[in-house]
Amino acid sequence: MPDDGDTPRGRRFLGTDRLAAFSDGVFSIAATLLVLDIAVHPPGTLKQVLDAWPDYLAYVVSFLTIGAAWLAHTTLTGRLTRSDPMFLQINLLVLLVVAFLPFPTRLVAGALNNTGAERVAVTFYGLTLLAIRLLGSALDAYARREHLYSQQADADEVQGPRRKLLPVVIGYVTAILIGLVLPEVAVVLYCAIAVYLIVPFREVARLLPRRS
Amino acid sequence: MPDDGDTPRGRRFLGTDRLAAFSDGVFSIAATLLVLDIAVHPPGTLKQVLDAWPDYLAYVVSFLTIGAAWLAHTTLTGRLTRSDPMFLQINLLVLLVVAFLPFPTRLVAGALNNTGAERVAVTFYGLTLLAIRLLGSALDAYARREHLYSQQADADEVQGPRRKLLPVVIGYVTAILIGLVLPEVAVVLYCAIAVYLIVPFREVARLLPRRS
Amino acid sequence: MPDDGDTPRGRRFLGTDRLAAFSDGVFSIAATLLVLDIAVHPPGTLKQVLDAWPDYLAYVVSFLTIGAAWLAHTTLTGRLTRSDPMFLQINLLVLLVVAFLPFPTRLVAGALNNTGAERVAVTFYGLTLLAIRLLGSALDAYARREHLYSQQADADEVQGPRRKLLPVVIGYVTAILIGLVLPEVAVVLYCAIAVYLIVPFREVARLLPRRS
Amino acid sequence: MPDDGDTPRGRRFLGTDRLAAFSDGVFSIAATLLVLDIAVHPPGTLKQVLDAWPDYLAYVVSFLTIGAAWLAHTTLTGRLTRSDPMFLQINLLVLLVVAFLPFPTRLVAGALNNTGAERVAVTFYGLTLLAIRLLGSALDAYARREHLYSQQADADEVQGPRRKLLPVVIGYVTAILIGLVLPEVAVVLYCAIAVYLIVPFREVARLLPRRS
Repeated sequence: MPDDGDTPRGRRFLGTDRLAAFSDGVFSIAATLLVLDIAVHPPGTLKQVLDAWPDYLAYVVSFLTIGAAWLAHTTLTGRLTRSDPMFLQINLLVLLVVAFLPFPTRLVAGALNNTGAERVAVTFYGLTLLAIRLLGSALDAYARREHLYSQQADADEVQGPRRKLLPVVIGYVTAILIGLVLPEVAVVLYCAIAVYLIVPFREVARLLPRRS
Repeated sequence: MPDDGDTPRGRRFLGTDRLAAFSDGVFSIAATLLVLDIAVHPPGTLKQVLDAWPDYLAYVVSFLTIGAAWLAHTTLTGRLTRSDPMFLQINLLVLLVVAFLPFPTRLVAGALNNTGAERVAVTFYGLTLLAIRLLGSALDAYARREHLYSQQADADEVQGPRRKLLPVVIGYVTAILIGLVLPEVAVVLYCAIAVYLIVPFREVARLLPRRS
Repeated sequence: MPDDGDTPRGRRFLGTDRLAAFSDGVFSIAATLLVLDIAVHPPGTLKQVLDAWPDYLAYVVSFLTIGAAWLAHTTLTGRLTRSDPMFLQINLLVLLVVAFLPFPTRLVAGALNNTGAERVAVTFYGLTLLAIRLLGSALDAYARREHLYSQQADADEVQGPRRKLLPVVIGYVTAILIGLVLPEVAVVLYCAIAVYLIVPFREVARLLPRRS
Repeated sequence: MPDDGDTPRGRRFLGTDRLAAFSDGVFSIAATLLVLDIAVHPPGTLKQVLDAWPDYLAYVVSFLTIGAAWLAHTTLTGRLTRSDPMFLQINLLVLLVVAFLPFPTRLVAGALNNTGAERVAVTFYGLTLLAIRLLGSALDAYARREHLYSQQADADEVQGPRRKLLPVVIGYVTAILIGLVLPEVAVVLYCAIAVYLIVPFREVARLLPRRS
């Protein structure tokens, strides 16, 4: 399949433009729907607004995680020369879990003040975050195995998410285990992982000397 | 109409880019709004989260059905050389039913534990899924009759959804009838049909020997 | 302004691509959010599902009205060679009212069985529909006066919405007045106007002889 | 970084198309979700519909503010020749706050009749509006410092938002302070600032003589 008729196949199996448009739609809508999970209802007195800190924290963590997933997805699909049906299916699974994230986010936001349900919500949340990352990596692995990438795709920015996979998976598993005992700590760890995924440390390091 | 002035007509009757953008928008939003149908409210205790399995099942079935409809729609509109007003109207009807799907999904999610309303919800749901498929085929049939497709459009990937139409319609009608008696079984069948629509068996078969 | 430096101005004043993307986003989201206005909550017994007919009617009328407005908007913006700040502002007003439509739709859906609030809701709804149409025409009038259209834009499909403006405005005003007494009749008229806006009668007439 | 290999870098660090698509998605969804904040539930009697004026006002102010932020963002990203990771991160922060706006909008809409919570809601709202503007300016400042803009980008329409920054920040700070005492006045000021941001006074002035 990869060797005979690469370009015509690419055209026959769906251009990557519509794939990108549909995916961008799901990512941006899922990120924007998160705001509906903030459960302060008017009148919002100062106490109510301040007591809702778990809602804001859950909003930020989920938004940054979707942002990081979108960054990785954009980098990945931007390197494709073509697509194939299996790729589209794995991509649908990625989107299915991304679009699901507002639900565990709502649970976490509503449970953080409520020790009974806290552990359930945070564990569920962590498993969803882990699934997003693993499915994203599966998409990348499939694209690599089927030679869907253009030649230049082995450059830095595709390598970046790959290098970060192992530490991130270890981080998520650790946070999920910690969350069984200390749910708030786990949420802070999820936030740290999202920031780690978004911040391009190599770039920052490269920029730093230039500034000083 | 098809023979005189094909290209200028195409331009006069609306490019297909905006059609694709609007349609992708509706598909991706409808898919992402499904998460709002999950009716577990915080605090989500372990029992509440586990008891909500019909919500998750309904979410997955509807997401995959919209995914399958989007795949067929993308394939179809990706082959158009032009569009015409009647095509746009049929397309609006397709989108009207796709955007409606979150409502019967909510009914199914809320009814699956509730034998009284279960049959009503599942039948309503099945009729909506069937309508999405039939309207999608009507769009394809119209485009074919009016020669809106480019020449290469008789290739495999347009034929694919067509070959699957009859088994899928039989499947939906069977599931709707079964659902009058055994609603849960019908929902599992709807899930199977969505997977059948998404998985490109020919491709998988072609890939399999290569793996072994 | 129109004569000196047409193309560079167009570039300086924002390309029309992003305008189309943002507008398509608002149109498709507003259309898809309408489903949230259907107020049947699970369990949906047969009686509940059937009694919700005003919700379905309101959904269909609003979806078709947004669809018609999107068609006119697409035709209009597809003919632009450039855009200017005033055009963007009028466009923002159009989108502001389109994005507002789910609210009066919810009122109508909830009031149709409830004679007390019915007249208020239907009148409010009609005024919103009329505002969408008038602002759309203002956008077209401005684009024409400022020569933002390409030369070919005087073709049929830009003329179409213009020819329909007067009958549509008369229709809306009549329906709003009727709605003060007979709200259900007004909603049926709004549906008829949306269908009238979408169906391209000239095209249909041109197609008919070919069929027979 | 800016001087060696500008174009290949631009390609390696993500084209600006997907960035625009994702951002347009978040802007248009946030703007369209605002309608869900209008808290009149059916049946909407005349009194209920009229008493909801704070909801309509909050809707209009937030829609126009998002519209103004989108205009500035479009102008800004339309001038980019390339993007880099830090730019994407600042952009994610902008979108995070824009997507958050429906929440304080809901608080303001629900509090304006309710003097107890009014000050809290309006202050929170004003701080969010200010954050959108400051982060937008940070994005512009970064793009300028890193030479991400094309050469023509020093034209009028990038200068416009910059010239308006100082008066807008002074306006927001003043309105926030006033809102601690007179919340309704602050909301009117936020509306005035949004209109000021959208209306291109230089253009209007240039057009005026032509009219007379």
